[in-house]
Amino acid sequence: MKFAVYIPPQAESGPVPVIYWLSGLTCTEQNFITKAGAQQYASKHGFLVVAPDTSPRDCKIPGEDDSWDFGTGAGFYVDATEEKWKTNYRMFSYVTKELPALVAANFKVESDKAGIMGHSMGGHGALICALKNPGQYKSVSAFAPICNPVNCPWGVKAFSGYLGEGNKDAWKEYDACELAKKYNGPPLEIMVDQGKADNFLTQGQLLPDNLVGACAEGGVPIIMRMQEGYDHSYYFMATFMADHFDHHAKFLKA
Amino acid sequence: MKFAVYIPPQAESGPVPVIYWLSGLTCTEQNFITKAGAQQYASKHGFLVVAPDTSPRDCKIPGEDDSWDFGTGAGFYVDATEEKWKTNYRMFSYVTKELPALVAANFKVESDKAGIMGHSMGGHGALICALKNPGQYKSVSAFAPICNPVNCPWGVKAFSGYLGEGNKDAWKEYDACELAKKYNGPPLEIMVDQGKADNFLTQGQLLPDNLVGACAEGGVPIIMRMQEGYDHSYYFMATFMADHFDHHAKFLKA
Repeated sequence: MKFAVYIPPQAESGPVPVIYWLSGLTCTEQNFITKAGAQQYASKHGFLVVAPDTSPRDCKIPGEDDSWDFGTGAGFYVDATEEKWKTNYRMFSYVTKELPALVAANFKVESDKAGIMGHSMGGHGALICALKNPGQYKSVSAFAPICNPVNCPWGVKAFSGYLGEGNKDAWKEYDACELAKKYNGPPLEIMVDQGKADNFLTQGQLLPDNLVGACAEGGVPIIMRMQEGYDHSYYFMATFMADHFDHHAKFLKA
Repeated sequence: MKFAVYIPPQAESGPVPVIYWLSGLTCTEQNFITKAGAQQYASKHGFLVVAPDTSPRDCKIPGEDDSWDFGTGAGFYVDATEEKWKTNYRMFSYVTKELPALVAANFKVESDKAGIMGHSMGGHGALICALKNPGQYKSVSAFAPICNPVNCPWGVKAFSGYLGEGNKDAWKEYDACELAKKYNGPPLEIMVDQGKADNFLTQGQLLPDNLVGACAEGGVPIIMRMQEGYDHSYYFMATFMADHFDHHAKFLKA
């Protein structure tokens, strides 16, 4: 598994907080570091940033490369339970356990000061990592996340494949809306930016309104900003990246 | 020919200055707009930014795709005179005449307020466009430019191919050092950033010292900043992009 790391100048004089970035469908560990323009904000605040790949690769699982939205590049940040995938596709454990341990062992980070953010499929990933592990992440934010995968075509396809067709109870354990409704942990303020001209919004893949409703039900504070004229791209994210780092700084540098 | 355009919000209320960005070897019109993070500075200053491709493409010229540093993606911003290339490979005329006319006809720009900047082969391009057309560009800057193509392997290969082997007099007309020595026009202050850990610097492809010497000889002011630890990448450029836009603003908004 490849991952990218940005080390801020502040790390030269001691351990720094760490932010995990989870990318969207088809991405590798490269997309965020080349396109988001986030280094300047990580440098300003003194955050080490870790950007993992979006799935295992080249596992030789039959069909792993058949779809752009399932298998390679589309791990959906779940631990698969279906026979074919369960050995390799364990992105939830990778992102929340194996990777933080690797990072703690190899970089100067304050492991109790971790934040997590992501885009689209990775926005879903960031939300579920934070909501399923109360206290592990002090801050969470997302750009155009897949908010309610059990109710959108991408999510249904992925969860059917990794967790079993129709296995709704298992699916709900990886659904940000379901998790927000029953969240029980330290205060967690979610920040989301969503472009109003995002074609995946129109297609019903993202369902931000459902997340706002679920957060209200679960008593989880959420800042949901609907951004006029913005699409699903890295241009959109680069525009508001400074605000997301400011949001994380509120909690990681408190 | 494809080109990318960033239109700043200020263009909604009237014409704005324009900056041309010339990319380096192998690039298309996409590299700068996805990786440089420059939109924020163009937006701040109110500059329209135009990023053309680096060569004609798919001309069906035998051998056009044989090298990464000659032919497709490697136009070197010259008007070729060799029979095989002279019909299509006219990047100097394209960048300095055809493209500005297209831009003036289709976007709200103050055509008398133009700047030009570029990277590597495109840094060479920016320098020669400004030095060969006194007054057309009010401002010029470059990242890791090929400063003295007649004396480096990339330049010798390209100029031999496009302008004729050993045709040194023609070569000199597209060499920033030769042009700086004999510059005669309105004041032009060149700004250059060069990474000290740039492998192409070590390999003698860029020769910034020669440009500093030539500028001294020609009385052209130059700010040459040697940046410790930086390489030839877009990460290097993103780091100092704000300074380059500030430099252009000094002249374009004067």
